[in-house]
Amino acid sequence: MIEVALFGAGRIGTIHAGNIARQPGVRLQYVVDVDHEAARALAEKYGAQVADAERVFEDAKVGAVVIASSTDTHADLILRAAKARKPIFCEKPVDLSLERARICAEAVRAAGVPCVIGFQRRYDPTFASLKHRIDEGEIGVPEMLVVTSRDPGAPPVDYIKRSGGIFKDMLIHDFDIFRWIIGDEAQWVFATGSCLTDPAIEHAGDVDATAVTIRTRHGRLCQINTIRRAAYGYDQRFEVIGSQGMLQAGNHRPTEVVLWSSGAITADKPEHFFLERYRAAYAAEMAHFFEVLEGRAKPRTSIEDGVAALALAEAATTSWREKRAVELP
Amino acid sequence: MIEVALFGAGRIGTIHAGNIARQPGVRLQYVVDVDHEAARALAEKYGAQVADAERVFEDAKVGAVVIASSTDTHADLILRAAKARKPIFCEKPVDLSLERARICAEAVRAAGVPCVIGFQRRYDPTFASLKHRIDEGEIGVPEMLVVTSRDPGAPPVDYIKRSGGIFKDMLIHDFDIFRWIIGDEAQWVFATGSCLTDPAIEHAGDVDATAVTIRTRHGRLCQINTIRRAAYGYDQRFEVIGSQGMLQAGNHRPTEVVLWSSGAITADKPEHFFLERYRAAYAAEMAHFFEVLEGRAKPRTSIEDGVAALALAEAATTSWREKRAVELP
Amino acid sequence: MIEVALFGAGRIGTIHAGNIARQPGVRLQYVVDVDHEAARALAEKYGAQVADAERVFEDAKVGAVVIASSTDTHADLILRAAKARKPIFCEKPVDLSLERARICAEAVRAAGVPCVIGFQRRYDPTFASLKHRIDEGEIGVPEMLVVTSRDPGAPPVDYIKRSGGIFKDMLIHDFDIFRWIIGDEAQWVFATGSCLTDPAIEHAGDVDATAVTIRTRHGRLCQINTIRRAAYGYDQRFEVIGSQGMLQAGNHRPTEVVLWSSGAITADKPEHFFLERYRAAYAAEMAHFFEVLEGRAKPRTSIEDGVAALALAEAATTSWREKRAVELP
Amino acid sequence: MIEVALFGAGRIGTIHAGNIARQPGVRLQYVVDVDHEAARALAEKYGAQVADAERVFEDAKVGAVVIASSTDTHADLILRAAKARKPIFCEKPVDLSLERARICAEAVRAAGVPCVIGFQRRYDPTFASLKHRIDEGEIGVPEMLVVTSRDPGAPPVDYIKRSGGIFKDMLIHDFDIFRWIIGDEAQWVFATGSCLTDPAIEHAGDVDATAVTIRTRHGRLCQINTIRRAAYGYDQRFEVIGSQGMLQAGNHRPTEVVLWSSGAITADKPEHFFLERYRAAYAAEMAHFFEVLEGRAKPRTSIEDGVAALALAEAATTSWREKRAVELP
Repeated sequence: MIEVALFGAGRIGTIHAGNIARQPGVRLQYVVDVDHEAARALAEKYGAQVADAERVFEDAKVGAVVIASSTDTHADLILRAAKARKPIFCEKPVDLSLERARICAEAVRAAGVPCVIGFQRRYDPTFASLKHRIDEGEIGVPEMLVVTSRDPGAPPVDYIKRSGGIFKDMLIHDFDIFRWIIGDEAQWVFATGSCLTDPAIEHAGDVDATAVTIRTRHGRLCQINTIRRAAYGYDQRFEVIGSQGMLQAGNHRPTEVVLWSSGAITADKPEHFFLERYRAAYAAEMAHFFEVLEGRAKPRTSIEDGVAALALAEAATTSWREKRAVELP
Repeated sequence: MIEVALFGAGRIGTIHAGNIARQPGVRLQYVVDVDHEAARALAEKYGAQVADAERVFEDAKVGAVVIASSTDTHADLILRAAKARKPIFCEKPVDLSLERARICAEAVRAAGVPCVIGFQRRYDPTFASLKHRIDEGEIGVPEMLVVTSRDPGAPPVDYIKRSGGIFKDMLIHDFDIFRWIIGDEAQWVFATGSCLTDPAIEHAGDVDATAVTIRTRHGRLCQINTIRRAAYGYDQRFEVIGSQGMLQAGNHRPTEVVLWSSGAITADKPEHFFLERYRAAYAAEMAHFFEVLEGRAKPRTSIEDGVAALALAEAATTSWREKRAVELP
Repeated sequence: MIEVALFGAGRIGTIHAGNIARQPGVRLQYVVDVDHEAARALAEKYGAQVADAERVFEDAKVGAVVIASSTDTHADLILRAAKARKPIFCEKPVDLSLERARICAEAVRAAGVPCVIGFQRRYDPTFASLKHRIDEGEIGVPEMLVVTSRDPGAPPVDYIKRSGGIFKDMLIHDFDIFRWIIGDEAQWVFATGSCLTDPAIEHAGDVDATAVTIRTRHGRLCQINTIRRAAYGYDQRFEVIGSQGMLQAGNHRPTEVVLWSSGAITADKPEHFFLERYRAAYAAEMAHFFEVLEGRAKPRTSIEDGVAALALAEAATTSWREKRAVELP
Repeated sequence: MIEVALFGAGRIGTIHAGNIARQPGVRLQYVVDVDHEAARALAEKYGAQVADAERVFEDAKVGAVVIASSTDTHADLILRAAKARKPIFCEKPVDLSLERARICAEAVRAAGVPCVIGFQRRYDPTFASLKHRIDEGEIGVPEMLVVTSRDPGAPPVDYIKRSGGIFKDMLIHDFDIFRWIIGDEAQWVFATGSCLTDPAIEHAGDVDATAVTIRTRHGRLCQINTIRRAAYGYDQRFEVIGSQGMLQAGNHRPTEVVLWSSGAITADKPEHFFLERYRAAYAAEMAHFFEVLEGRAKPRTSIEDGVAALALAEAATTSWREKRAVELP
């Protein structure tokens, strides 16, 4: 029985708690959160105890930590977990500072503990199937990637101020998709942005719509378009053009009901937001984490992937600010 | 804590066991199956005990029975459960004999125990949403219903011999959909069938493809087309024409990947078969059963619904054999 | 240069006039219509002359007649054209009387003149492609056919009174599709109907919704569902299940615009009605007629096809009236 | 009767000839082409005469010229037509030199002759409907535009050498779509490209895949992705995100046949290439030209539009070569 400590009892922590509880041979032992009431409620639901970080890292029986607390706590918890030689699952991003993220990666490597970063999209049934089919050679060599990534609404401006900006809090996922799908590394990135939906976001020093272009070392091209508030909802699609065909990943819909009315033919909007859209992905990534712990798999989303996506986000931020293409090292 | 006894540790029993285990405040206490090994394995997985029916009905702490054993055991178990005043969830069909099914319904009514029949399709997110939208008046009055119901492969001929035939083992679901959706009762049914895919089915006295027409008391029309072996997979669609529009229920697909190749544009086939297609429905119907037990809902698929669908199946069988429209009483 | 006489300057005659004018080496010479003003206007548009039937059949230079006048004139005009040995294109149905239709077919055969019946659906790009793919063996042997055939609105009740009823005026096309697609002949037909949309149709002795089942000699099954007034528009689909797969023919839409709004995802309704939906088919059938005249093709929709579809319509009418399956000879 | 002279008897000239012939009150009088045989064949088909430019511009009865000859002849013919005060329809681009294109525009304005540029996509039923719906306010203010524009195969390298490069010969259409749809003018453009499909294109100094970003004066964003050889065919889609929703323009398919096989669900690829995809658009733009001549419409694609798209193409070419965002004046 693997005993697990969960950091963070918020929205995403709650998702992880449910998925941890569902793993055979795994038990949620501790819940840690600065919000004691949230920690208590979540712990109670799954028969766990409330604890602080100290106790977690001292408890030799804790076999894994799941870090879903606020971003500014990630690096510290990763370092402490690495030191305590506890396997780590950590939500993205590793940190807002690329340098600190690299230190974390180094510590994880040095400690030799497994570490899975929560790029859940790679575990989504649609995206994973598409990736598998690329690997099977269905479309030959990937040449171009077009990513559409739109949210139904912006997070609170307070969050935006602390989030590192749209490239680090939202596009970090898209940069990871890019690296995973295109099969090549970025040579340079050109990013621009605009504030189209809410002036408060501009006052917070951020944008709410972006257009990113990446060129890889082999000359492959990627375009990413994002918006923080798509009036119609959550929109997560991408398409990969290869030398022999194209693969598209489409949205998922809550139901397959279609209305034929006197005016038009009408289908459901996509799933509401990431908690709904990636429900299966969250379950699959946690199952994967425990497969890694049992030695049955290598991390599919490693801390190095976390660092690499952050490097792209940082380069994109610079590109947007300085209005020029930014080379990756 | 409601303690539950499960009869049947086969394919569908295993599904129910998982869904019972997931209900808050519910505990799988007993598993009963003539195949002791199957019962033991399933019981172990969920920390339950293997038992026989005797013990279940004598145990006052058993608060509900879930009947997923073979069809020929349903009536007896319903009658015993009713006598023991235990709430009942029972897989369809209630029985192959309309008379016995009516006796069961009478016993359930007399005992005053809640009884939910496993017409899981009514709990499917797509079908339930469609029904809700009819009830909201989106298409006015339902006038016609076209049901497409095709399986990827026939069951073993041995099963077919004991199943009561295609109208009772396969179309029973479609007859229930008809009653649920059209909002009226059948006046007569005309059914025909053919053996197109496997002569062994014909030798077993059954058909593997059917075309059914039902006319309701208010003159509404329904057509059902079925086949036991659709070369392309499992196909579960229906469409309802109302005075103001049409609602369609489409298939669900495992992923939303689309391939654009030099030859064509290609999407996933529908979910493989009923265990995949109705996974969410099986979970929802079990949650509903416990809502009923807690007095928070009335059975949405009652034993009377089970009897009524069986009456249609019996009329259809007669129609097919005698090549004539058969009136419902 | 082939000189053509057109009977009928109404809606469908106007379509044919345009398509005749577009054929290379063909010239619209005469327009005949009891409505002289309509005849004059149409003739003028294409540089033709107004004439009466007498003149058409006496003019040795007339190389073909196109009959698009009212149904009650078809048989007489076919007989006169056959006698005058003029190639014939005639709108469906050949006649409302099966006996008279057979006399026409006999006269055409005896005269040895080419005769094409206006079952335009066989010339539709979607339907023709589907048929071609069946013939190529893509789905193996056709086993079941489901035809959806719904109009956006009923014709005037005055027309319905003279039309021979829904099975002869509307389903005649679907019966022809059945014969063309299923690759087998009907053994019996069972038809029912209802008056759901307009009591005036019932008073005229007709129905506005039908459900038809046909079983072929080899046991293949066909279901046809129709309604004279689908609130959402014109709906012309069918699907053929074969031993190795299924082919579907879908509707055509005026545009491929899709709206993603805060409520739903919305696409165009199908093309408005038959003049729009079958525009390409009308052009193709007329081109085919002149190919036949030049000896480059055999009639793809012969007068025998016209007779056979009428026989099905008559059997269906009897079935509906007598509430029983009706054998075909 | 308007007499028309057509310059160019090639592929696109042939399309225009057919559409000219179909206009009521219009007559194709002259065909001009350096390839005399091509001119002769086309003239004969429509009862026109072969002529040279001299004769066309001297003939006072010529009421309009349609320029579909090679790009290097456009400017000269426009200037001569303007001088002769003959209304002009001219294929895109106006010229490869922005300066010469501006001189043409000036000449046209000075002469006061109507001039329509052949940006046929604006006349496509799908694109025109989408634009109309934006104008009706269906999605509020347009904020982002994503254009997918992929060809099934590259033109001959010889053509590429003379074409002005991919931004002028292929993206010129997409730049026009951008200006038409986004409702704002470009502030700057950033373009990159790659040679992914054929090294011969690289040797010719061009690329075969591009990724373009445009930012408008109001901060709206546009991304265009193109490839000269999409293995799966011709792909022409775009989507506009507005403050209140999104409108998508999808591909057109030759038929609506769908195959459900044991492996997948398969639909037609898009129409093969621009001659098929934009057949209706070519007809509509020519009809529009004669509406303009009759004073019933203003040019919907003016020579100023031609100049503006060319300016974007030139800026994009510079951006690609110099790896920097290029401001528009």
